[in-house]
Amino acid sequence: MSTCRQALLLSSSNCHGYTLLEFAKQEICNFLKKNNVSELIFVPYAQNDFNGYTAKIKEVIDPWGFTVTGLHTYPDAANAVNSAKAIFVGGGNTFLLLSRLYEKGLVSIIRKKVDEGSLAYIGSSAGTNVATKSIHTTNDMPIIYPPTFDAIGIVPFNINPHYIDKVENEKHKGETRDQRINEYMEMEHAAPVLGLREGAMLQVDGASLMLKGVAGAVLFKKGGCKEQFQAETDVSFLLN
Amino acid sequence: MSTCRQALLLSSSNCHGYTLLEFAKQEICNFLKKNNVSELIFVPYAQNDFNGYTAKIKEVIDPWGFTVTGLHTYPDAANAVNSAKAIFVGGGNTFLLLSRLYEKGLVSIIRKKVDEGSLAYIGSSAGTNVATKSIHTTNDMPIIYPPTFDAIGIVPFNINPHYIDKVENEKHKGETRDQRINEYMEMEHAAPVLGLREGAMLQVDGASLMLKGVAGAVLFKKGGCKEQFQAETDVSFLLN
Repeated sequence: MSTCRQALLLSSSNCHGYTLLEFAKQEICNFLKKNNVSELIFVPYAQNDFNGYTAKIKEVIDPWGFTVTGLHTYPDAANAVNSAKAIFVGGGNTFLLLSRLYEKGLVSIIRKKVDEGSLAYIGSSAGTNVATKSIHTTNDMPIIYPPTFDAIGIVPFNINPHYIDKVENEKHKGETRDQRINEYMEMEHAAPVLGLREGAMLQVDGASLMLKGVAGAVLFKKGGCKEQFQAETDVSFLLN
Repeated sequence: MSTCRQALLLSSSNCHGYTLLEFAKQEICNFLKKNNVSELIFVPYAQNDFNGYTAKIKEVIDPWGFTVTGLHTYPDAANAVNSAKAIFVGGGNTFLLLSRLYEKGLVSIIRKKVDEGSLAYIGSSAGTNVATKSIHTTNDMPIIYPPTFDAIGIVPFNINPHYIDKVENEKHKGETRDQRINEYMEMEHAAPVLGLREGAMLQVDGASLMLKGVAGAVLFKKGGCKEQFQAETDVSFLLN
C-alpha cells in the first residue's frame, strides 16, 4: 500500500446520543489540520437534494473553522477534485453515489490523487463504501445499476457501515447483518469485511490504520471467523 | 400482459408463527393442482448448499402430494426447465440467484415459457424478486455483480419481499425500509413497488392478480404515495 494515503472513513454521520457528526468532530478537525486543509469540498451525490444536503454539512463543519462547498456548485467536477486538497463524500445510496462518481470520471481521479497523497479523503456511510475495494457489502438498496461494483480502493478490503449484530425484530424472518456478510464471505472473490459500528471510524495514515471513534468494529474472514476490535486499536495489518 | 401466466410469488418461505411454508400450503397445493402439476423442480441457486436446501423444501412439499427434485440434479438445467411444468425458485441472495439464472441461460427460457403458459412459477423472497421487472428493490447484499438488474418480468412492477415498516431499532441510524424504497422511487427508471409483508403472496392467473396469504402489502408510487392492501384484495390493476 502507498505510504502517503490520508483518509478518514466513518461508519455513519449520525450516531445515537450525538448531533450530526458530533462524535467525529475531534478526528475530523485533527485530520484536516494535519493535512493543512482549510477548504473542504463536499460530495453530495449519494442523495438527490445537493443544495440541501451540502447546507446541512456546511452548517456543522464551517463553525469548526473550515469552509465547506458543494462539488455540484463547480462548473467541472473533475477539475474541482483535481484542484482540491480534501473532499468529504457523504452518505445516502451507495449505488447512486458510485454510478455518479463513474459517470463524472471521478473514481480514477480520486484514486490517483489519494494514492499520491495530494487529496485527503473523508467518507461517511456510502462515502466509506465507495472508498473501499468494492461496494459488495453496502446495506443499500440497488436502486441503479452501476458499471461495476469495484470502488476507489483506498483500502484493500470491504467495509460494512452501520454494522449491527441484532436482528431487525425477533418476529421478522429477514436475514441478520451477519448472515448477509457471511453470504458474501462464501463467494470466491470475497475480501475481508470490517463491520464498522455506528460511531466507529477508520483513520488511514499511510501504512497505518487505526480504529477510532466511540464504537468498535468486527472483522469477518474466510471460513466463518469473526474478530472484535475496540476503538483505538491499530489494525494496520488489514492494509497488507 | 399475457392472459396465460401462472405464478405464485411469496414474500418469504418463513413467517412468524408458522413452520416452513406452512402459511402458504393451501395456496401452493391449489396452484399446483390447478396447473395439473405433480412434479416440481426446485431451483436452489440463491444459496450454495444445493442438496441441503432442496432436501429442506422436499421434506415439506412431498408430503403434500407432489414430488420435488433439485434443478442441480439434472445434467442440463436449460433442458430440465424446458421440459418442466412447474418450478419453485427459493430464497437466499437475489444477486447470486439472478447471476446464476443468467449464466445458465434460464432467464429468457423461464420468461418465454411462463409467458406462453407452459410453466407455472412459484417464487419466494429472492425467487420472487427475480420474477419481477427488476431486482432494484431486493433487501439483499450485492455479493456478486450480475450482468443486469433486469429480471424475468412475470409482473411489470417491482416487489420488496419481507416488507416491514419498522426501523431496525430506535437507536440505530441506518435507513428504514420505507426510506430505502423511496430512494428508488426518486429514480427516473423507477417502477411501482409492492412491499409484500411476510406471510403475503401474489397469485398471478393470466390477467388477474390477487393478494393472498396471512398478511397484506403496501404499494409505493411516484410522488411519495403509499397505499395499503389487505389479503384477498384484487390488485389486477397492477398488471396494466
